[in-house]
Amino acid sequence: MVNVAIMGHGVVGSGVAEILINYDKRISEKVKNDVNVKYILDLRDFPNLSYSEKFIKDFNIILEDESVKVVAEVMGGVNPAYDFVKSLLLAGKSVVTSNKELVAAKGAELIKIAEEKNVNFLFEASVGGGIPILRPLVQCLAANEITEISGILNGTTNYILNKMIVDNMDFDSALKLAQEKGYAEKNPAADIEGHDACRKICILAALAFGKHVYPEQVKTEGITNITLDDVAAADTFGYVIKLIANTQKLNNGKITASVRPTLVSRENIISGVNGVFNAVMVTGDQTGEVMFYGKGAGKEATASAVVADIMDCIKHLDSRKYLSWADGSEGYVETNRDEYGKLFVRLTCENFAELERKFGEIFGDTANFVKNQYRNEICFIAEPQYESELNKKLSQFENCESKTLHIL
Amino acid sequence: MVNVAIMGHGVVGSGVAEILINYDKRISEKVKNDVNVKYILDLRDFPNLSYSEKFIKDFNIILEDESVKVVAEVMGGVNPAYDFVKSLLLAGKSVVTSNKELVAAKGAELIKIAEEKNVNFLFEASVGGGIPILRPLVQCLAANEITEISGILNGTTNYILNKMIVDNMDFDSALKLAQEKGYAEKNPAADIEGHDACRKICILAALAFGKHVYPEQVKTEGITNITLDDVAAADTFGYVIKLIANTQKLNNGKITASVRPTLVSRENIISGVNGVFNAVMVTGDQTGEVMFYGKGAGKEATASAVVADIMDCIKHLDSRKYLSWADGSEGYVETNRDEYGKLFVRLTCENFAELERKFGEIFGDTANFVKNQYRNEICFIAEPQYESELNKKLSQFENCESKTLHIL
Repeated sequence: MVNVAIMGHGVVGSGVAEILINYDKRISEKVKNDVNVKYILDLRDFPNLSYSEKFIKDFNIILEDESVKVVAEVMGGVNPAYDFVKSLLLAGKSVVTSNKELVAAKGAELIKIAEEKNVNFLFEASVGGGIPILRPLVQCLAANEITEISGILNGTTNYILNKMIVDNMDFDSALKLAQEKGYAEKNPAADIEGHDACRKICILAALAFGKHVYPEQVKTEGITNITLDDVAAADTFGYVIKLIANTQKLNNGKITASVRPTLVSRENIISGVNGVFNAVMVTGDQTGEVMFYGKGAGKEATASAVVADIMDCIKHLDSRKYLSWADGSEGYVETNRDEYGKLFVRLTCENFAELERKFGEIFGDTANFVKNQYRNEICFIAEPQYESELNKKLSQFENCESKTLHIL
Repeated sequence: MVNVAIMGHGVVGSGVAEILINYDKRISEKVKNDVNVKYILDLRDFPNLSYSEKFIKDFNIILEDESVKVVAEVMGGVNPAYDFVKSLLLAGKSVVTSNKELVAAKGAELIKIAEEKNVNFLFEASVGGGIPILRPLVQCLAANEITEISGILNGTTNYILNKMIVDNMDFDSALKLAQEKGYAEKNPAADIEGHDACRKICILAALAFGKHVYPEQVKTEGITNITLDDVAAADTFGYVIKLIANTQKLNNGKITASVRPTLVSRENIISGVNGVFNAVMVTGDQTGEVMFYGKGAGKEATASAVVADIMDCIKHLDSRKYLSWADGSEGYVETNRDEYGKLFVRLTCENFAELERKFGEIFGDTANFVKNQYRNEICFIAEPQYESELNKKLSQFENCESKTLHIL
């Protein structure tokens, strides 16, 4: 028999407890070992649950119980999760977590401790909820050099953008609806400002390229500035706007990562990822593009990924899974890159005649543009060039406002 | 150092050899062991290759060399691959294969031998080429009860259907183009008759539900009867036609599997899987729908999946991976199911007035239909009902032709 502890009994934690307790036979059969939830750590009381006797409030009970071999950390946040996980690993227990904030901030350090103690530290649920992505990335794509990862990593923002695109709903109304449906939190900042997606792309980048990428090294922009006019203008050119997290290996060997609203062609399968779904597109030098798609959040999906990690730990109590990366070295991440590529521009000026004249003068050879006199606006897809070049050109339009968006 | 042998130097085999030899450092680093290709078995001569000294023509050299621990079988076909693989497993060597025909026909038996000999028999490349799907199915979805798998498992037919849908090209021309591009073989029967997809859904069904499903237990229909008129009619209702392989667990505990041209709603992300790409949608009771997408064939993609399996064998020389199923029991697969659901019907009669009258009489309450007097035809989506019921109704239309297609 293997004893397991769960730290946290919130949305994900209660899901983990329910799966482990309700499906104990199915799980024990699959891991060829009896799995027993011995403790659930939570400061709150749950007297009416059938398994209420398992609740404890003191972390040290888990830490000091040598019969507990695997612990699920599903509390969220860096503190006190970090101290708890570190102590558990140092005590020789395997830990699984769904906590992307913790892994993005402290992954390299915790992995190192796990390696030293010959235990496992798994976190499949931290990216893409129930979508298997970290393990396939490491194992099945093992023979590949991964060159780029692009994804829709946050279901809340995808839901909001989708409502704007399909139902012509404005940002505020879509956010409100997402909150009513439980897809967005009361304080939605972590989602709509892009921080949640940022943490996830850090984890993917670290696994794919081998060194830790920290959230503050990722150019992160949320969706709060996206308007229905942007959505409509993008549509004119056959694009939808998605919050895309991206990381790639540059020719100079450095890594770069970003999270930002991005135009995705309707021809690209990622454009069809709707609602709260997530998708991760991995480009390998041998496999080409491979995509993983599914519900990125939700109690059952995330909990089932945590349970799968617990099961994997139980099957490998004496051996380590190859899921690791090193700490980031100085200059490893390129943070101020002048990107080269096509860009989407909306240019609005008080004087439309003057805008037309100037546009002809500066962007005369642009093939793809739409004039909208009613809005005093010209939208266009600028030919591939450095972002700095384009900005220089745009700065020549006086008394005008410009908005640029990258294109996937 | 670990010695590896490759049996077969065709498209996939040469890819495997090239990856193992050209990227030996990258691979040895990842598996923490030196990987050496000792033999390549092929009846042909390749005198101009840089690694021509590795070629042998006698299988027994591999079988009898105790230093060879892992063998890749990339010859294809059931014979002599079956005899070779069986002998190798019995001799205590791990085997990886991309040979779906072999796994679909003999998987249960070979897995059993591998278990008895405590070696690995891996076949990730047999389904979905370079897309990681078998391993995630087993490992990451471990905490799930899988209820259904639907997928586009054959790139050739998807390419042909796509050409018909997007470019209005007829079947014969699209097939010819696919052959010119190397996407279809000279003898395309295995692809266009659905046999290739059938073998793959057998493997997926076995892994997901635990018992072998044999190709002859799968209702298999290819795409040779699909016409541009079908494609256009489906489009009218917002659907595209895809060759969908499906397997599901029925309420009576039995398994059912099919391969057939199927209508897929444009709202479904699977409808966006174009060209030679494959996609597998797995429904789990906890995760909901999870999709894996990528190139299902091609030298590099398939070879890289074979190499990933080789690497996994090397990392687990002394332990077995949990990738197994039992032999199928009597009555395990339901082969003659009267399916309940919506169906798409094209009904063509000589006498259009009579067709209209009769349609009103029998399908009067059908909400979704399109009349086409020019073609003497009525197309409609029949309300959910048993297929046998629908066929009884359709048989009442005298001097008429009817064509029915299932809907995903």
